[in-house]
Amino acid sequence: MTYLDLLRTTTERTGSIICVGLDPVLEKIPIKGNPEKVITKFYTDLFEAFQSENVLPGAIKPNIAFYEQYGFEGLRALQNVITIWRAANIPIILDAKRGDIGKTSAAYAKACFVFWNVDAVTVAPYMGSDSIAPFLHYADRGVYVLCRTSNPGAGDIQDLLIEGVPLYQKVADQLLQWAQLGTGAVLGATYPEELENIATQFTKSGKELPLLIPGIGGQGGTVEEIMRSLKHAAYPLPLCRINASSAVNYAYQKQDTDDYAGAAVIAFKQIQRNAVIRQKTNK
Amino acid sequence: MTYLDLLRTTTERTGSIICVGLDPVLEKIPIKGNPEKVITKFYTDLFEAFQSENVLPGAIKPNIAFYEQYGFEGLRALQNVITIWRAANIPIILDAKRGDIGKTSAAYAKACFVFWNVDAVTVAPYMGSDSIAPFLHYADRGVYVLCRTSNPGAGDIQDLLIEGVPLYQKVADQLLQWAQLGTGAVLGATYPEELENIATQFTKSGKELPLLIPGIGGQGGTVEEIMRSLKHAAYPLPLCRINASSAVNYAYQKQDTDDYAGAAVIAFKQIQRNAVIRQKTNK
Repeated sequence: MTYLDLLRTTTERTGSIICVGLDPVLEKIPIKGNPEKVITKFYTDLFEAFQSENVLPGAIKPNIAFYEQYGFEGLRALQNVITIWRAANIPIILDAKRGDIGKTSAAYAKACFVFWNVDAVTVAPYMGSDSIAPFLHYADRGVYVLCRTSNPGAGDIQDLLIEGVPLYQKVADQLLQWAQLGTGAVLGATYPEELENIATQFTKSGKELPLLIPGIGGQGGTVEEIMRSLKHAAYPLPLCRINASSAVNYAYQKQDTDDYAGAAVIAFKQIQRNAVIRQKTNK
Repeated sequence: MTYLDLLRTTTERTGSIICVGLDPVLEKIPIKGNPEKVITKFYTDLFEAFQSENVLPGAIKPNIAFYEQYGFEGLRALQNVITIWRAANIPIILDAKRGDIGKTSAAYAKACFVFWNVDAVTVAPYMGSDSIAPFLHYADRGVYVLCRTSNPGAGDIQDLLIEGVPLYQKVADQLLQWAQLGTGAVLGATYPEELENIATQFTKSGKELPLLIPGIGGQGGTVEEIMRSLKHAAYPLPLCRINASSAVNYAYQKQDTDDYAGAAVIAFKQIQRNAVIRQKTNK
């Protein structure tokens, strides 16, 4: 199955294009113990709460930085989290933003697609096509290239103008040239106009590029704005994933409850309500 | 001790500005066993060969991609390699090219500077200042920002012209603005003219930026060219590190010997001969 097929069938089955970022911060998780135990239990509980509510996100996206910060215990937790969520049969996107020269990128691609064995990964474009090519060799996987990121400092480099055109737009142009089946783009939710412009460009190209859209919630983007941008761009929604991390993971803090797993499902459903694709088929 | 001090005292003690990349590729290492055992033994043997010849590189640079590709065994090997080489009291540069939004970059910085506890790290600039800032909070560590990389596809993005000025030059400009004590740049050896121009700009700025220069040997750059560029730029050589990986690691293949550790030291000395700073003080 290609990555595009996985996105489409998952959207059909779950009715969701919301991706849940699984980004552990020990200080925010109300469980005591070592990092491996705490993180594993937290995301097992979330998984079970989603299952028991008969609801699933359209993808999950662990950002490996949050696991690496806890050393081997964090990485063992990541392995556990991937194993547990694998049973949901939804895309697992490893947010790793790797990028290096050719043979070194090949080692990163092997780490992501063989060792972690995830369905898709994020990569950084600064080092050019030969740094991205090794990821594209894995024909059944997804590769999201950073294009327009959602952070406040994104513009420092990405807004630099090349003959009147911002760099992120040039990266989008390059991306269309590099793109193979499964190649996609990261477009930050905090810049909905730019998202719309690039999505429109991609639509017109006739290529089907998966979009990963982070930045809603704490960072300031809203699902409504993104949905509007995507609809204006006539973008195939099943290929899109709008990511929410903190807003789901730590929803219990806002809901003032101890039931962190239940709170996460409630928060997910609220977000999901603004991104309805169709009723799920309950297959 | 600041990272600049560590670079200077190491240069004085070892007489070397050559950095040895420790990039394991199992197929090239003539030892049998699991990845952890093979990699650990290989770099222990190299360390002991250097010690017994009373010679040391000016730094070592493990590229984490080569360890990550072997999963937990590879990462345990990295831990062993760092522990063994720590005894040499030379800079350990973790080539990780990390870069993400602020709080995620903070997690990466923690992974690099607390868990791996290395002296310096490489980071990617595409996501802007707030993605680099968390690394700069570790005031006694070094942070090399990718500026001009050494790979063939480097130009795809880095050569894009902003008002007639290539992107890598703009990144260098930004870097000078962001730079704090210990902030440096990665400048590929395969582009000696560009290296000279940027090094000249840094010299003129009056800021002391460590330079990490990969790309000699297999990639096509030569030590002589780099040394010439640095001298033309009047760059303080003790702040520079010219990296050689394959040419040292797998020198035994060219020297047609089984003594891979001895061959590595011979290859290092040959490279070192073209980058003489001063006689080492044997302190």
